[in-house]
Amino acid sequence: MVKTGVEILCVGTELLLGDILNGNARWLAEQLASLGLPHYRQSVVGDNTERLQSAVLEAADRCRVLITTGGLGPTPDDLTTEALAAAFETPLDERPDLWEEIQAKLSAGGKTVAPSNRRQASLPRGAAVLPNPLGSAPGMIWSPRPDFTILTFPGVPSEMKAMWRETAVPWMRQYGGAHGVFVSRQLRFCGVGESDLAEQVADLLTSPNPTVAPYASLGDVKLRITACADTEAAAKALLDPVAAELRSRTGECCYGQDDDSLASVVLEQLRTSRQTLAVAESCTGGGLGAALTAIPGSSDVFIGGVIAYSDAVKRQLLGVPADLLEAHGAVSAPVVSAMAEGARQRLGCDWALAVSGIAGPGGGSAEKPVGLVHMALAGPRGCVAWAHRFGDRRGRDAVQRLSVIRALDRLRVQLLAQS
Amino acid sequence: MVKTGVEILCVGTELLLGDILNGNARWLAEQLASLGLPHYRQSVVGDNTERLQSAVLEAADRCRVLITTGGLGPTPDDLTTEALAAAFETPLDERPDLWEEIQAKLSAGGKTVAPSNRRQASLPRGAAVLPNPLGSAPGMIWSPRPDFTILTFPGVPSEMKAMWRETAVPWMRQYGGAHGVFVSRQLRFCGVGESDLAEQVADLLTSPNPTVAPYASLGDVKLRITACADTEAAAKALLDPVAAELRSRTGECCYGQDDDSLASVVLEQLRTSRQTLAVAESCTGGGLGAALTAIPGSSDVFIGGVIAYSDAVKRQLLGVPADLLEAHGAVSAPVVSAMAEGARQRLGCDWALAVSGIAGPGGGSAEKPVGLVHMALAGPRGCVAWAHRFGDRRGRDAVQRLSVIRALDRLRVQLLAQS
Repeated sequence: MVKTGVEILCVGTELLLGDILNGNARWLAEQLASLGLPHYRQSVVGDNTERLQSAVLEAADRCRVLITTGGLGPTPDDLTTEALAAAFETPLDERPDLWEEIQAKLSAGGKTVAPSNRRQASLPRGAAVLPNPLGSAPGMIWSPRPDFTILTFPGVPSEMKAMWRETAVPWMRQYGGAHGVFVSRQLRFCGVGESDLAEQVADLLTSPNPTVAPYASLGDVKLRITACADTEAAAKALLDPVAAELRSRTGECCYGQDDDSLASVVLEQLRTSRQTLAVAESCTGGGLGAALTAIPGSSDVFIGGVIAYSDAVKRQLLGVPADLLEAHGAVSAPVVSAMAEGARQRLGCDWALAVSGIAGPGGGSAEKPVGLVHMALAGPRGCVAWAHRFGDRRGRDAVQRLSVIRALDRLRVQLLAQS
Repeated sequence: MVKTGVEILCVGTELLLGDILNGNARWLAEQLASLGLPHYRQSVVGDNTERLQSAVLEAADRCRVLITTGGLGPTPDDLTTEALAAAFETPLDERPDLWEEIQAKLSAGGKTVAPSNRRQASLPRGAAVLPNPLGSAPGMIWSPRPDFTILTFPGVPSEMKAMWRETAVPWMRQYGGAHGVFVSRQLRFCGVGESDLAEQVADLLTSPNPTVAPYASLGDVKLRITACADTEAAAKALLDPVAAELRSRTGECCYGQDDDSLASVVLEQLRTSRQTLAVAESCTGGGLGAALTAIPGSSDVFIGGVIAYSDAVKRQLLGVPADLLEAHGAVSAPVVSAMAEGARQRLGCDWALAVSGIAGPGGGSAEKPVGLVHMALAGPRGCVAWAHRFGDRRGRDAVQRLSVIRALDRLRVQLLAQS
């Protein structure tokens, strides 16, 4: 059998018990696709030496590169490195520099160095270190056979991703076995459904190169454009006109591309127009502020806000009149407008977004069902209020997340109209 | 090799491209664990006959039961049934009753019957239908070899789950090969590292029944205890004393079990003591409020707070004195204490948590590096301030999330001391 492609092997009993979603496999698969690397198989085994070894030896006969995640920690059930060494009958050597680095990292992080951490400093003879810039568990790049290389990563997603970006991507580009150069771009949309979007661009969805494919997740729709050519410049030259055509067809529904988020786009719009923003949150409870402040540099334009979860806080900190609350209830257009205007005045900013709704599962009524969310945006030219009905079947988390998305998107469109 | 256990094989190119998370594998794995069925391997292959057949024939040598998902639809890339039949050199027979049922279902759903739907009515000779109560794609239960049975499911999660519950669960209980009943519990820890915890309970980590295994994710460490016995009561009787022993050794580091979160535990403590909570957030930007309000019913005790991202908001809404800000800077014990006390007084609650730090990547200095976070907790007996140094390598998101975790955990411990 001709050996081609990259396989992913995730090690962890927690995956076999269904405790966690295999987000690592998905993320790595996406990365392999964007690098144009053929990827034909993913496997999961538990923290078990024998079964891990069988899976690795099988993969060694099938693929050129095997990526493993998990089992690099200091505890007895972290056995990936030892199991791999034994599978290929290779001795483990302690690397003194690695052991020093592990001790230094743990000490710098204020953690005590346990004897069990010392195991992490041993790698099979001949393996290269795959450095872990974030955590103490290093990975390795090791070719136990001439035509087969293993790259090991810890299971902690942030560490795996940092190691992938810093070390594995350049390695994969050089040795991974890609045919041609792939360039990929994602356009991001809000306020349009996946099937509506697909109909607008139906003729482009069958194009062979670049390919265009739609994806949807909660409140977010994406079009991925992927072009393949001999050079990066040639692939980009294929991709750019298709991206431009998609943007011109879809108009302001397209809010950005690749790593853009609604929050990052809105913050950039505000930065450009030298305006500031505050929030007044009831049912989102801080989620809107958290989405904005997740973006580095948000303090340029985001000044803060009020989590007005109780009616008392709505009155005291935002100046919502008690009779308004009594007449209309907290989840109403008049109250959410007063929240937005109160935030804008009291915090002294150009724009204020307010959200008040019924996230559920309790608290709904026939008139105001779970999933009803009122929003308001106060700005230089006055205040506008609107409402969404997200329904009672998606759950509290989805109502809160969709509220954040819709509020930010309304501000984005308003800022577009202003500019 | 003795064949034991159940394997899961998910078929779908979209999984290999990283377009979707493999939620089916997780859900099925959880189901197998709750049925006490040994589950040692999961695999993913694309919509490719040859690779699907290799994966199935390998599994046939390893396991007693193989569950497949995906590839049962009417489109050309749905090829699971044909590929399985060919792999075991078995002819496909059209089942007239199945074809009638498929036509009836499609018509009832207002869909047109396409010629391609007819393929779905064929199963390998000897296979039993695994009925699909929701969709048109039926599955099958088929033993192509004496000691090996395949159950096929569509990839649509709602259809797979309905078929699992109605037909596969009773089949699995009877033929799946469970030895005994498994009962499992997770203990959750904060403020202790995985390796420190593992050393405290090292002798129990090698126990065969119940087994105890540690897991770690950002700011969170877990111990999973799994017991097996002839009956659920007997398994629980094995598990309970081990859980009690673990709790007694680890003390207040153990904050809960199973579905508990720090936020849910703190809210419950406050509910019990009939006290209320507010937050004053700078570098977490709303994340602390969002964590608390993610829990249904949080409005009983969480009244809201102030996202005091700019210094102006710290002064105006929390009453932090301007000279304090000037003398010590926003990221300091005096300012974060003033934030907590200001929130407690102005919002009128029993407890207030305040957080002010440098989440990064910018804004750090030699004296106040990225990752430095000051926190304060104001309560009935005064205000206490402390600081964490999370370092500059983990990234903004991790600093923000760890800040939320540490703040909630400090409040949890304080509430424990009070009770």
